[in-house]
Amino acid sequence: MTNPIRIVLDAMGSDNYPAPDVEGALQAVREYPDVHVILVGDRAIIEKELAKHGTTPPRMEIVHAPQIVSMEDKPSNVARAKPESSIAVGLGLVRDGKADAFVTAGNTGATLAYATLNTLRRIPGVKRPALATLVQVQGRTCVLVDIGANADTRPEWLLQFAIMSSLYAEKVLGTPRPSVALLSNGEEEGKGNELVHATAELLRTSDMQSQYNFIGNVEPKDVLNGAADVVVADGFVGNIAIKSMEAIGDYIFQTLRTEVKGNLLNLIGAMLLRPALRRLYHRLDPMEIGGAPLLGVNGVVIIGHGRSNPKGIKNAIGQARRAVQGGIVGAIREGMAKHSE
Amino acid sequence: MTNPIRIVLDAMGSDNYPAPDVEGALQAVREYPDVHVILVGDRAIIEKELAKHGTTPPRMEIVHAPQIVSMEDKPSNVARAKPESSIAVGLGLVRDGKADAFVTAGNTGATLAYATLNTLRRIPGVKRPALATLVQVQGRTCVLVDIGANADTRPEWLLQFAIMSSLYAEKVLGTPRPSVALLSNGEEEGKGNELVHATAELLRTSDMQSQYNFIGNVEPKDVLNGAADVVVADGFVGNIAIKSMEAIGDYIFQTLRTEVKGNLLNLIGAMLLRPALRRLYHRLDPMEIGGAPLLGVNGVVIIGHGRSNPKGIKNAIGQARRAVQGGIVGAIREGMAKHSE
Repeated sequence: MTNPIRIVLDAMGSDNYPAPDVEGALQAVREYPDVHVILVGDRAIIEKELAKHGTTPPRMEIVHAPQIVSMEDKPSNVARAKPESSIAVGLGLVRDGKADAFVTAGNTGATLAYATLNTLRRIPGVKRPALATLVQVQGRTCVLVDIGANADTRPEWLLQFAIMSSLYAEKVLGTPRPSVALLSNGEEEGKGNELVHATAELLRTSDMQSQYNFIGNVEPKDVLNGAADVVVADGFVGNIAIKSMEAIGDYIFQTLRTEVKGNLLNLIGAMLLRPALRRLYHRLDPMEIGGAPLLGVNGVVIIGHGRSNPKGIKNAIGQARRAVQGGIVGAIREGMAKHSE
Repeated sequence: MTNPIRIVLDAMGSDNYPAPDVEGALQAVREYPDVHVILVGDRAIIEKELAKHGTTPPRMEIVHAPQIVSMEDKPSNVARAKPESSIAVGLGLVRDGKADAFVTAGNTGATLAYATLNTLRRIPGVKRPALATLVQVQGRTCVLVDIGANADTRPEWLLQFAIMSSLYAEKVLGTPRPSVALLSNGEEEGKGNELVHATAELLRTSDMQSQYNFIGNVEPKDVLNGAADVVVADGFVGNIAIKSMEAIGDYIFQTLRTEVKGNLLNLIGAMLLRPALRRLYHRLDPMEIGGAPLLGVNGVVIIGHGRSNPKGIKNAIGQARRAVQGGIVGAIREGMAKHSE
């Protein structure tokens, strides 16, 4: 038998920790026979939560971390203020080779800062790590990057985001020769802001054209219609795009729910339509995917939604597993080495 | 009786011109007894289209313009290449005081360039005109600005967009003391890119705080939940936000339509749910609003969607009417004069 994939889960990560985190971890070891989960956090709290579920299964252990990073903690403060947090201890296990991946539904900024500056650090050649998300539509998956790690970026950073995400699409998602595009306000030349113009120029003239499959600029709708396998934006714009999509999705489903309540015919209609609405909702549900891979650090890191439910946690662990199996860190290391030659 | 409101409609504007444009104009003169529509475009084509609808009603005239600007025409070229286009002639009528407003569903960039540089020009003090859109949710209307006039902006321009849009919300939409916010990737301080930081600082220290009602930063979801009456972004980010929202809305309704087709129970469910779905769809339908006001030029200009149907055109004319009634151009002129003092 091959060695198990050792995944650290921040048991104090989600908004409602530790319940969704612990239950998600239990689901994960059940679903993935090759996964070993290391729950990191306050041992007493974790043990109490595990006890609710009966006997703790094999392929699961606890590593104690006495401090908890909240969503309110400032990322720049966390290393100094909370050196024994579950984020610090968990990422330390990956750095020290005692685990293969780190998963958290906790403070994104703190995880990012801690992974980049204090523990894993950057893969040689990587200027800035980037946060990617997977948008699944019509059986295809689009990698949207950066959704928030870098609010202000330079063309060379975006070029690296493109390379790292293309490798992610290829090695982890299995997309052959992924097409890579820049997010813009229109496909035509002349559209785009200065950053998009400069980056498009760089992508056209760099090894993106020969080594990778740069196809030009796309609009937000193209993230959904399969026009590109990877869509690159600066972290501010990518964050606005993904949050705008989530906002309208939430609005539509909430409004439908309200409309349906007041009226019997609507209620019957909604019941009949339920399977279709459910499928649609799930397709747009971020929990289905689990979390956002942090690309460019020396280790697999997946950051889930704060409001993750157990399934969200389980899927984030599954995503970490696939990233380890795909050898994404090694692939980015090689890609960066080739790129900087 | 008061003077009629004279609104120029670009009859060659929409993707399917002149049918939706002419029919929308006819609907508008029927719905608004104080509106006089001047159809600008190829006289023969317009007359032929009008003939399909029987007798041309009073309060409607044609002004001939022999050239047509297509969606493919480069905005920077249009003034030289097509000096007698419907856009040029129509905006000229407003500049010359022969009409009160200009409405088109045609080439946005060309209209913007022609209005700003060749005809109406900027209101004194305005550094850059901005394109706003109205997002209607739960009985409230949010003005989102800029959705595409300026891909790269400076804090002082965004400050002016905030002032102009606040005046639009107050004078045209009737919102008392509109709340104004900056679009960001999070409400917390520290979130946002450099432009957002610098603009927030400027808005806090300028007369925005005393004269206007600046409330801080908001996220995309706040455009929909009534958290702010005006949301300000640079034209690149605003365009990405609105296009991301449209993309998910379209995706959801298209997917529902496809799902429903294959299955009888779903079909019955959808029929029962139809009124609720319809209402929801209409709430998100840009045609319900009509178009985007171009703020900061010396005249009322409304730019509709290229794919406008007759109702979209009619509503864009209605929007131009309200903007004229609200005296938006005079209000911005005054606001700018006060601001630059």
